[in-house]
Amino acid sequence: MTEVRAKRLQLEEFTASVMRALGLPLEDAATVAALMVDADMQGSDGHGVIRLAPYAKRILAGGINLNPDIKVIQERTAMALVDGDNGMGHLVMKKATELAIHKARTAGIAWVGSRLSNHAGPASLYARMALQHDMIGLYFAVGNANHLPPWGGLDMLLSTNPIAAAIPTLNEAPVVLDMATTVAAYGKVKAKAQRGEMMPEGWMIDRQGKPLLDPTKSEEGFLLPIGGYKGYGLSLIVGILAGTLNGAAMGSQVIDFNKDFSTTTNTGQAIAIMDPSAFGDITEFKQNIDTLVRELRSSERMPGVDRIWLPGEQSHEKRLSNEAQGILLAPSLMKQLNDLAAQLNIKPLTVQIQT
Amino acid sequence: MTEVRAKRLQLEEFTASVMRALGLPLEDAATVAALMVDADMQGSDGHGVIRLAPYAKRILAGGINLNPDIKVIQERTAMALVDGDNGMGHLVMKKATELAIHKARTAGIAWVGSRLSNHAGPASLYARMALQHDMIGLYFAVGNANHLPPWGGLDMLLSTNPIAAAIPTLNEAPVVLDMATTVAAYGKVKAKAQRGEMMPEGWMIDRQGKPLLDPTKSEEGFLLPIGGYKGYGLSLIVGILAGTLNGAAMGSQVIDFNKDFSTTTNTGQAIAIMDPSAFGDITEFKQNIDTLVRELRSSERMPGVDRIWLPGEQSHEKRLSNEAQGILLAPSLMKQLNDLAAQLNIKPLTVQIQT
Repeated sequence: MTEVRAKRLQLEEFTASVMRALGLPLEDAATVAALMVDADMQGSDGHGVIRLAPYAKRILAGGINLNPDIKVIQERTAMALVDGDNGMGHLVMKKATELAIHKARTAGIAWVGSRLSNHAGPASLYARMALQHDMIGLYFAVGNANHLPPWGGLDMLLSTNPIAAAIPTLNEAPVVLDMATTVAAYGKVKAKAQRGEMMPEGWMIDRQGKPLLDPTKSEEGFLLPIGGYKGYGLSLIVGILAGTLNGAAMGSQVIDFNKDFSTTTNTGQAIAIMDPSAFGDITEFKQNIDTLVRELRSSERMPGVDRIWLPGEQSHEKRLSNEAQGILLAPSLMKQLNDLAAQLNIKPLTVQIQT
Repeated sequence: MTEVRAKRLQLEEFTASVMRALGLPLEDAATVAALMVDADMQGSDGHGVIRLAPYAKRILAGGINLNPDIKVIQERTAMALVDGDNGMGHLVMKKATELAIHKARTAGIAWVGSRLSNHAGPASLYARMALQHDMIGLYFAVGNANHLPPWGGLDMLLSTNPIAAAIPTLNEAPVVLDMATTVAAYGKVKAKAQRGEMMPEGWMIDRQGKPLLDPTKSEEGFLLPIGGYKGYGLSLIVGILAGTLNGAAMGSQVIDFNKDFSTTTNTGQAIAIMDPSAFGDITEFKQNIDTLVRELRSSERMPGVDRIWLPGEQSHEKRLSNEAQGILLAPSLMKQLNDLAAQLNIKPLTVQIQT
């Protein structure tokens, strides 16, 4: 079988050239490209370059401010509120995270929220930025499409509102959790539909509350929250912290970014950074996490279970293998990227082909 | 049927008298009693006066320091680490929460962790303390008994590690989430066993991964995390933030407080307080939460659903009805409380009996 793989740098350069062609300034195009490809590197491929086409569609529809004035509009010692001025979400949340890291260094913990932001890729991208500073990152976001009603309800007023957490380690892979508060993310439903597969019970229900298994009928039902009413509560709290608190969209204000490409989404996100060295010796902390990781991994296993995984371990391995072998690009994605290149009149992506 | 109900003040006075008889100083006994009865007031009866007997057992076994020196051992502008000196958890976490509220007033957000603490009642008790200051409270704790293995594993290295969040409102009941990261809390399993009922599928599994329905066989199986591997990740992150980060017990270090009454538990908890007035106008924020609450409540409903509840709404109504009618005490609980009173040679609880 023919496999098409792109090296990280190559994919970054292509992505940046698309962003420049769409009108982003040079530096911003490079920043967005690096973060988008970083999503692919860790296997979050639903949030990587697969989003180039919908981002382009939004930019061309006038739905994104290409020269935003991203600025702090509220600030205290350990918090800030960033107004993204409807710029690309990656630019807004990178700036917010850098500010939170800076503040956490003296305050011990810092929280930075955003309003007038946009989709910024996988939640773990920003939580992980803490790791190179030996800090802990927590990230919360309001999802960009509502697919979840309140528990017992039919009106889709909530989204998959994700949570991410990144914990530094000494020798082990960092512990990185990145999860939607629904059993399945909506992207997984769309992937099932594309592959012509049925969904497992527990992902979605229909308007009578019965299991919905056919992903092509997903518009007739809703995602299920994790743990039933608990996940509903969790999605609501994440939405309040990342949305309402920041003056960003929440509930019926959320714009479905798959259907409406021109209205300002007023997306809200939040990053919290904690400095473990404020609590005690940093090396001891990282050693203790290593010990905990090994203890969990060494647990006796259920019949048929080959290995116990820690959160983030699989994406860490994916990152290493992608670094070595390049990022696998499906033929449909290659076509999508090069159709976009042709439309924008830029050089196509030429990649290594392995057989 | 005969119902036994106690007024809040009456139950507080009795609880304080038990704590004094056990050796707690006057003021500490009153503080613990008020928090324990507050748990019953909001319907968290698994964490209220039902715990008096096990607390007494631990104190009498020398497992609690009756005169702890609860002190801040690490501090930055927006964080602190409190050493509870093995005192009652309620004293440790009340002090931690008050400190976090104080710090959040200037820093915008503050995080206070504890080590050498003990079981402190329901998670929402401390998150709710933020509300009277128009602030947001988030609470995380390491549970006091491990009933959850890592995903795919058999060794019980994790606990129900709960999360609570409290959000202030203007005219609506506050939004208060209080949830274990497992589908069911272990107390619910014990309650099913007491009532001779089977558990629903999804609460527990056995060592082969098959559903475990008989609660009297709970020792042969494990609790299931919410959303499968997601809840495992969530329980781990909560445990790291509330335990490992604070130098408190986590993983195999956790003492099962139902089986071991004398070993220091080194319980870890954490409270985060956020001041919404740092983000913008506080009244506007509370109005926006009211609007969101009403929007969710007004959602069209599934067939057979009478009402859509917001997190915390049921415990808010319970609090109001308990304030008016007194707290319902089951005959078995009354007997337990008065057996304890007899053992400690103090006045029994005499309550109003309604028929």
